[in-house]
Amino acid sequence: MNTLVDILNIYQNSKVQAFSKGTIVQKANDLKAPSIYVKKGILRSYIIDSSGKEHIYMFATEGWIIGDIEALEFKRPAQLYIDCLEDSEVIFFEKEQLFSDGLSKEKILENVNLFARRIGRLQRRVLMLMGAPAADRYAYFLEIYPELPSRVPQKMIASYLGIAPQTLSSIRSKMAKEN
Amino acid sequence: MNTLVDILNIYQNSKVQAFSKGTIVQKANDLKAPSIYVKKGILRSYIIDSSGKEHIYMFATEGWIIGDIEALEFKRPAQLYIDCLEDSEVIFFEKEQLFSDGLSKEKILENVNLFARRIGRLQRRVLMLMGAPAADRYAYFLEIYPELPSRVPQKMIASYLGIAPQTLSSIRSKMAKEN
Repeated sequence: MNTLVDILNIYQNSKVQAFSKGTIVQKANDLKAPSIYVKKGILRSYIIDSSGKEHIYMFATEGWIIGDIEALEFKRPAQLYIDCLEDSEVIFFEKEQLFSDGLSKEKILENVNLFARRIGRLQRRVLMLMGAPAADRYAYFLEIYPELPSRVPQKMIASYLGIAPQTLSSIRSKMAKEN
Repeated sequence: MNTLVDILNIYQNSKVQAFSKGTIVQKANDLKAPSIYVKKGILRSYIIDSSGKEHIYMFATEGWIIGDIEALEFKRPAQLYIDCLEDSEVIFFEKEQLFSDGLSKEKILENVNLFARRIGRLQRRVLMLMGAPAADRYAYFLEIYPELPSRVPQKMIASYLGIAPQTLSSIRSKMAKEN
């Protein structure tokens, strides 16, 4: 995967900020929603529903972007909480930097493709939440996030997948036996 | 909402194709996934899960784009079925047309925003599928697709929302009483 660092030399104009594990970078109802490039560590975004339950929207490891794009694009208050699951280094940036005047047509198209691929991933995410068996959801999760099972608690992965933690345990035991 | 017709004068280069109600424009496992601009009518995309149940991914009315962007971006066989819910007129186009050389920087950025807003909508869709009460899902549906309840069967809307048709009936009765 092309990272933003490959595509846009974001380091030249931007300050790296360090946050320790557990830092909350954005809260629901915040009025400004930052776009965040993850240089090191892991961030996650999540909602807390009306019954108080957490649902994880996404994880972002090195090279990923995380943010609350609905809040940004529709100028609404933030819907998501975003926090650090490890000590992390991030760069805050503006979407406009990805498409700014100094960039070649080619770079701009690469950045368009970042967006297009994200839509593709979200399409799959929606379809899986609607109709896929838990084992298929986990298999796709491993394709997207191969290194996460060793870095984040299993119950968070279950939350991302929309399945019970026990269901995920059974899937993992079954996979371990099969390998 | 800016339609593609506002943004890119797509009519000048593209042929309008007419399809009658019920026509299937794409099937799961097709090797080529078209991007489709809807000039007239309604198209929908859906999957059929391993138990044979349909799940509607999206509807596209006049001015919308519909397609299988995961298949396109990751060069996979199509995952979605796409069919016409009314007699429809559509224009097939290529993503590259939205970012082609003849377009001004400004138009290209407008088209980038189409993609960004789509990500924002999908973010909300995922979060609602994970944690929102059925009534909130329907309220958001009406915000996105205000005219659809009079144009498509209620059971399809329930499928899009990931709720039982009876649940949607109760929500609608309750809303009708409150108004």
